[in-house]
Amino acid sequence: MTQTAGRVPTGDDLIADFVTMSAYGATEAGGVERQAGTAAHGQVRGWLAGWLAEHGFQVRTDRIGNLFGTVEWTPGAPYVLVGSHLDSQPRGGRYDGAYGVLAAAHASARVCARFAEASRTPPYNLAVVDWFNEEGSRFKPSLMGSAVYTGKLDLDRALAVTDQDGVTVADALRSTGHLGELDGPVAAFAAEIHIEQGRILEREATTIGLVESNWAANKYEISVHGDQSHTGSTVMEDRQDALLGAARVIVAVRELADRWPGILHTSAGQLFVHPNSPVVVARQADLHLDLRSPDEAVLAEADALLEQEFARIEESTRVRIVKRTAHRWGVQSYQPEGVKLAGAAADELGLSSRPMLTLAGHDSTNLKDIVPTVMLFVPSVEGISHNEHEFTADDDLRAGVDLLTEVVARLCLGELAATDDQER
Amino acid sequence: MTQTAGRVPTGDDLIADFVTMSAYGATEAGGVERQAGTAAHGQVRGWLAGWLAEHGFQVRTDRIGNLFGTVEWTPGAPYVLVGSHLDSQPRGGRYDGAYGVLAAAHASARVCARFAEASRTPPYNLAVVDWFNEEGSRFKPSLMGSAVYTGKLDLDRALAVTDQDGVTVADALRSTGHLGELDGPVAAFAAEIHIEQGRILEREATTIGLVESNWAANKYEISVHGDQSHTGSTVMEDRQDALLGAARVIVAVRELADRWPGILHTSAGQLFVHPNSPVVVARQADLHLDLRSPDEAVLAEADALLEQEFARIEESTRVRIVKRTAHRWGVQSYQPEGVKLAGAAADELGLSSRPMLTLAGHDSTNLKDIVPTVMLFVPSVEGISHNEHEFTADDDLRAGVDLLTEVVARLCLGELAATDDQER
Repeated sequence: MTQTAGRVPTGDDLIADFVTMSAYGATEAGGVERQAGTAAHGQVRGWLAGWLAEHGFQVRTDRIGNLFGTVEWTPGAPYVLVGSHLDSQPRGGRYDGAYGVLAAAHASARVCARFAEASRTPPYNLAVVDWFNEEGSRFKPSLMGSAVYTGKLDLDRALAVTDQDGVTVADALRSTGHLGELDGPVAAFAAEIHIEQGRILEREATTIGLVESNWAANKYEISVHGDQSHTGSTVMEDRQDALLGAARVIVAVRELADRWPGILHTSAGQLFVHPNSPVVVARQADLHLDLRSPDEAVLAEADALLEQEFARIEESTRVRIVKRTAHRWGVQSYQPEGVKLAGAAADELGLSSRPMLTLAGHDSTNLKDIVPTVMLFVPSVEGISHNEHEFTADDDLRAGVDLLTEVVARLCLGELAATDDQER
Repeated sequence: MTQTAGRVPTGDDLIADFVTMSAYGATEAGGVERQAGTAAHGQVRGWLAGWLAEHGFQVRTDRIGNLFGTVEWTPGAPYVLVGSHLDSQPRGGRYDGAYGVLAAAHASARVCARFAEASRTPPYNLAVVDWFNEEGSRFKPSLMGSAVYTGKLDLDRALAVTDQDGVTVADALRSTGHLGELDGPVAAFAAEIHIEQGRILEREATTIGLVESNWAANKYEISVHGDQSHTGSTVMEDRQDALLGAARVIVAVRELADRWPGILHTSAGQLFVHPNSPVVVARQADLHLDLRSPDEAVLAEADALLEQEFARIEESTRVRIVKRTAHRWGVQSYQPEGVKLAGAAADELGLSSRPMLTLAGHDSTNLKDIVPTVMLFVPSVEGISHNEHEFTADDDLRAGVDLLTEVVARLCLGELAATDDQER
């Protein structure tokens, strides 16, 4: 960190910066639309890069478009990676991902100032990171940038993924100037803060969620194959209606959730119909299903029941259903030492906290599989998520950064280093 | 008709011309894709215009892009309009509409030759017509060109209709060179031949269907309104899933048909989901429903039951359903004198025929409301329709043109003139 870096950002700066940042891709209803690799996404990343440079970080982008702002205290040492994602869903909320990136930048700037003031040289270096394409709405799969970084997804395969208009990830990154030529910094530890996207913290009037593990998820791509015919003249028994088959799949998937109230979430979020003409019985319907549970056995049983339902629908609707697993993850724990470290820091700051699970996937879900990782939540009003009306109170935003600052400082000082050694 | 017109086309010419015509917009599986106002549609219309000019017809296009080939024997007299449509569904069949236009051209050329040979001057003039946008897949509503021609649809409203990419009808017509500046010729009578799109003629080994009336149809545009949320983290009870609501509507519409077996056809052929992201519970789903029956009372009762179903779905799924009637027509008779004329002509030619209903809408459905109109069917193998595998045997194509020639000649000679006077 250079001596010319900007002054240490305050809690008021955080709120002001958040307002500034939320103007990029702002929607009328108060949300943002910044899907991965779009112009609005490129612009908010440009703003972040400027902020990081101004505060003394070295800015660079890796080969899958993850954007890093680094500070190197100990040459050659690995990094504490702290961040989240700036991309959003279509008509998404302002907080999802974006708060975590801004919080990482502010916390890191404060940590730099603290070490500079104390003339202390931490054994680990520090990088703020904005992971590319966490949302997966334009380019599948979600968590793309962190999946490539952690070696779970092949770089070339990811770069070749296309959106509905045939634009590749590589072209989209190039068009916004965020396709780099190098790898990112090597990680030693990671941290992420995010809004809860649920009602638990709000209901219990608790400020901080300490994430212990994630729900398991099975994501499927389904194709329902029928035969094209005339909506008026074709007699009902002759029809092989792919859209009707898809509708029955959607209803069956919803009814599955009623068998395990509270511990199975199911959804169909995306559907494409072919040829999608008002007077043509559809020949094909492609849909995306999403099943999640904190219990992998429930998910396995739900999967088996779904297969039975598909067979019934094939029979009743005269269609053929092809199921492909698009993405899948199990219930996995974050390192307990990280949860303990964050809980102790929250106690010292006088912030109420509780351990909890995350239902949604996060970039930290990938990171925790390669390095000890701390995942923190702040409350979401009414649990509203992937919606323009998503909201978190300013005081909670400030408290989250206060805690993240403590956590990052401790990670840089190597407080989890023993854990790290054990793991390897 | 000038003396330089080409020779009289034979049955073999018909088959050869049909093969030539089917190459425009041909698909690999043997169908055609020539949606209204696309390049392929423009090209096949260009080919038709050339054919008509070569055979002595005056070619012109009206202000909604209907293409006419006229011959004027009696200056100032109204016209017998004979034709169908060259536009197709996405991945549609070769016969639907296109056969009727080519048959009209061939029949009219033969009629011209016959009158020329007999040195006879008929009291009515003759026009071959290719009606614009019968299918309605790209631009709604269907039957657009004939609806504007018959005064049922406002010209400016039709020209301003946009497709999914925001292209207007006017721009699409201009881009293919088929936007004219004048009105079409005035009609005295009309005729259309079409493939049956059902199995009745094939099953009964009958060559010609004499259409007496059409099934009634109610077409609705439905919007299901929910609220956007996260497919993973939002608890099931909090969701207002528009796609789930749409799926329940589609299933309910299908189940309605089971209450009136054989006399109620129901379908959902088009569905758009917003935002259509894999990890977002949809905020809105727009779909197009199609209900048809030979009995208007059944349709009215089905409509009332549908309203009850919608209320149930709104309650169970926490969505709001808005229903708009997009298009509606009742059971209406073709003029019985026309059916009789065509039946007598078929008998004289030794062609088997039977009276029947049409389940699909046709341009003649509009024409019959302003002038006496004859509608003829030829068989469809297995009733396959709006599908690349649509098929009609060559012998049936030839027989249809033979009969259409007779019908057109009689209409030009005023055999239905008394009916015409009675109607007015």
